[in-house]
Amino acid sequence: MAKQKTVKESEVVMTEMVLPNDTNTLNNLMGGKLMHWMDIVAAIAAQKHSNRIVVTAAADSISFKHPIALGNVVTLKAQVTRSFNSSMEVFIEVWAEDIPANKKTKTHRAFFTFVAVDQNGRPIEVPQLKPESELEKELFDGALRRRQLRLVLAQRMDPKDAVELKSIFNFQDGPPK
Amino acid sequence: MAKQKTVKESEVVMTEMVLPNDTNTLNNLMGGKLMHWMDIVAAIAAQKHSNRIVVTAAADSISFKHPIALGNVVTLKAQVTRSFNSSMEVFIEVWAEDIPANKKTKTHRAFFTFVAVDQNGRPIEVPQLKPESELEKELFDGALRRRQLRLVLAQRMDPKDAVELKSIFNFQDGPPK
Amino acid sequence: MAKQKTVKESEVVMTEMVLPNDTNTLNNLMGGKLMHWMDIVAAIAAQKHSNRIVVTAAADSISFKHPIALGNVVTLKAQVTRSFNSSMEVFIEVWAEDIPANKKTKTHRAFFTFVAVDQNGRPIEVPQLKPESELEKELFDGALRRRQLRLVLAQRMDPKDAVELKSIFNFQDGPPK
Amino acid sequence: MAKQKTVKESEVVMTEMVLPNDTNTLNNLMGGKLMHWMDIVAAIAAQKHSNRIVVTAAADSISFKHPIALGNVVTLKAQVTRSFNSSMEVFIEVWAEDIPANKKTKTHRAFFTFVAVDQNGRPIEVPQLKPESELEKELFDGALRRRQLRLVLAQRMDPKDAVELKSIFNFQDGPPK
Amino acid sequence: MAKQKTVKESEVVMTEMVLPNDTNTLNNLMGGKLMHWMDIVAAIAAQKHSNRIVVTAAADSISFKHPIALGNVVTLKAQVTRSFNSSMEVFIEVWAEDIPANKKTKTHRAFFTFVAVDQNGRPIEVPQLKPESELEKELFDGALRRRQLRLVLAQRMDPKDAVELKSIFNFQDGPPK
Amino acid sequence: MAKQKTVKESEVVMTEMVLPNDTNTLNNLMGGKLMHWMDIVAAIAAQKHSNRIVVTAAADSISFKHPIALGNVVTLKAQVTRSFNSSMEVFIEVWAEDIPANKKTKTHRAFFTFVAVDQNGRPIEVPQLKPESELEKELFDGALRRRQLRLVLAQRMDPKDAVELKSIFNFQDGPPK
Repeated sequence: MAKQKTVKESEVVMTEMVLPNDTNTLNNLMGGKLMHWMDIVAAIAAQKHSNRIVVTAAADSISFKHPIALGNVVTLKAQVTRSFNSSMEVFIEVWAEDIPANKKTKTHRAFFTFVAVDQNGRPIEVPQLKPESELEKELFDGALRRRQLRLVLAQRMDPKDAVELKSIFNFQDGPPK
Repeated sequence: MAKQKTVKESEVVMTEMVLPNDTNTLNNLMGGKLMHWMDIVAAIAAQKHSNRIVVTAAADSISFKHPIALGNVVTLKAQVTRSFNSSMEVFIEVWAEDIPANKKTKTHRAFFTFVAVDQNGRPIEVPQLKPESELEKELFDGALRRRQLRLVLAQRMDPKDAVELKSIFNFQDGPPK
Repeated sequence: MAKQKTVKESEVVMTEMVLPNDTNTLNNLMGGKLMHWMDIVAAIAAQKHSNRIVVTAAADSISFKHPIALGNVVTLKAQVTRSFNSSMEVFIEVWAEDIPANKKTKTHRAFFTFVAVDQNGRPIEVPQLKPESELEKELFDGALRRRQLRLVLAQRMDPKDAVELKSIFNFQDGPPK
Repeated sequence: MAKQKTVKESEVVMTEMVLPNDTNTLNNLMGGKLMHWMDIVAAIAAQKHSNRIVVTAAADSISFKHPIALGNVVTLKAQVTRSFNSSMEVFIEVWAEDIPANKKTKTHRAFFTFVAVDQNGRPIEVPQLKPESELEKELFDGALRRRQLRLVLAQRMDPKDAVELKSIFNFQDGPPK
Repeated sequence: MAKQKTVKESEVVMTEMVLPNDTNTLNNLMGGKLMHWMDIVAAIAAQKHSNRIVVTAAADSISFKHPIALGNVVTLKAQVTRSFNSSMEVFIEVWAEDIPANKKTKTHRAFFTFVAVDQNGRPIEVPQLKPESELEKELFDGALRRRQLRLVLAQRMDPKDAVELKSIFNFQDGPPK
Repeated sequence: MAKQKTVKESEVVMTEMVLPNDTNTLNNLMGGKLMHWMDIVAAIAAQKHSNRIVVTAAADSISFKHPIALGNVVTLKAQVTRSFNSSMEVFIEVWAEDIPANKKTKTHRAFFTFVAVDQNGRPIEVPQLKPESELEKELFDGALRRRQLRLVLAQRMDPKDAVELKSIFNFQDGPPK
């Protein structure tokens, strides 16, 4: 499959309102509900890149710093950052908006990985991604490092083979983005 | 707060059936729905340890290798592994069971972190955890390493200060568990 | 089918949080929602005993004395008490927990009956139950009496044939448990 | 409160379609979901009789003989049969309809009991019921017998005081209706 | 298909309670949720008239003047007003009831149109409607006018052919009902 | 309130996947569910234009020609077309996408009207809309005509005063868009 696709072709925007059943005792959105939305928007992005059924393969670490309140409007934007044979890494950004207060905050970023499969659930090759903008190229390059970390954490790669990743701990560049 | 609590005091077991709306086109449980359940069971464990309102602070990387089918019974077990001032790490194990086929499989493991807060959402100290069994002690020790990785990934710790974590990449012990 | 199974083999624990949509105007869990959860946990217990598809055959009288508040954690425990050819009686106990107040109350007990069926919905024989502890034996013995009451109430047994049940009204022992 | 109300004043009809998430592996409505609907329709009938907030006090034994299929239309009709100080017994009838097949079946009947409460959850007196038709009078009379059974089963009445109920087991009339 | 059916044969009553997740920031029922309920009750009426699978073909303009509060009981009544080959117009009336306040208000009226289809989704003829009461006849007559407006608005009829409809704007009778 | 806002400032995109519970017997999205989504996306657009709480005032006629299948991804785009004192008209466009088949179809267009209210539910003035592109200007101009039709249909305007609207039936221009 020689075809290449741009990042734009996989971009998806999803908008949700925080309803009572989505919130905890402090009337803030529960983390698990947000991860559920992230998974849906990211799966759609991966479907658009591959035109295939996709299944979630991994969710990278997510840090929850900004509470999102009942009644807020949540915008999730997803785009594929890189593909590896049958798998695709998807970058998700989340904004929460208190519209009456006219206040919009970027609250979360996350990386999910999906595998494209055929009707019998077997992995199937996907198009390569062709990054264009500076940000797209940076995300494309970082995907390799994040993939090594993912494999090490899932105990499917020996840390000593994680060449790209190790450099982080050699103190020469910043932490993974 | 001098009080110490055992792991048993925070243990929670949750059971769910996979219903049609929880599944993707292949009739398998969507990853995001499973993360939603993980967040709920883990939040209850953290509440039981702290007797406080808790909010999700982080979800560590999750790898999805085993599809869980429509009609399966999913069992989630959560327990606090260690506390740090106001935060608690929770270990979650997931089993899927095809009961008519009499087949039960361990499908997932994950670590979530919660912060105990007062009614105004301000962090508040929690009891320390007292590990007893071998496994509890191993999880307690690993919590320090996982916490450093979490801080590095959230760009809140310089990799060179992650002493516990770095050892992983010195090839002297296995990957984080 | 000569096989006997223990009570432990069918035991299921389910944990739920009371969310806004589950509550009435007084912010207490609606009775119907609790019965819905009871049916699910009991069906799983009956499935585990029989390794079959099961369908609800009867729900015995349930008395609602203890309101369960919004935000409480509800724990439901189910176990098979006795089997009769293709049907199984399941005993359900319910606890409500106000975790910040560190207060856990046993709120409900109920008996549901399920029938094991094949893929065409026809009843199919299930293993016998082998009670071990004192409580398990007491529940096993009482199952006969409760079954007669169930049949009389469903107008499928003539009250004069309900030998076990009638004794209750001869004032020689306590009411059905 | 001298006021009397008729049965008609509390009558409620509810219609539901059986959706995928309401069904078990055989594509039939789950018993617990039906009990959930019964509780809602019966609570509305009790509210209409009392013009008060009501809470579920008891659900009498329910027998599930007729499976209800995915896509069927379920009609539930509820009416108050008798009031006792602050409590009301509600009679619920259920029909399932396969509309394309033009087939409607009466599938279930049940009795639920509700207590009217004030804003603080304290029981409060309700109007008496004035039965008019033959069926309404029969249900009104039977309510006393069912109430004694309910109290005996909840261990709140000594069986030897259940005068109305005992007669059933003296073989002189049929089982409770 | 010579058969005629009465309006009564298609009449459906549905009852819903307004729950937290159905409401907006002012604790009033969201308009979209009400339209969702209208579509369900009207589809059942069209199914009952045709004994066929039906699909929504049009929803006429709906005006929302009366807010419906959290905890209110909403009653929806639907009936077929007229059939045209394979399509049926359904009239929906909505009442909201604040039961503790003993206050019931007629809040909405709407017209939806459905098409009866076979298993492959192809339109199929339905029985004619035989109006009996004055109101039924008035709704039957108006159906022609509303159908022309619907076709004009969907750009499937030239306004100059909408003979029935035009009369409205000749100021000789009132607006469409 | 002299402020004017552009159309872009109110634009919202929402993405949904069609799940089993959203579909009818033919596995197509139910019309009522789509109207529910339309109401949410349009309410958010009206909130963004007004920075106020908004309530649904009217939904114009909607024609359902294109079935949307289970598993499709539905994209809804909403934008304010014009404001009148405290009310805003919102234009909604809907696309359905069968991603594995790489087929995206524009399936619906609709107009909803919202009123901005203060915390007590009283109407409050909103900014005027400043149309910029050709399409925005066309929608802005048509809003007057659609508003007259809305008022006539809600019986709040005498058809003879609907000057803008009447022209349609004078055969000089096309039907309302």
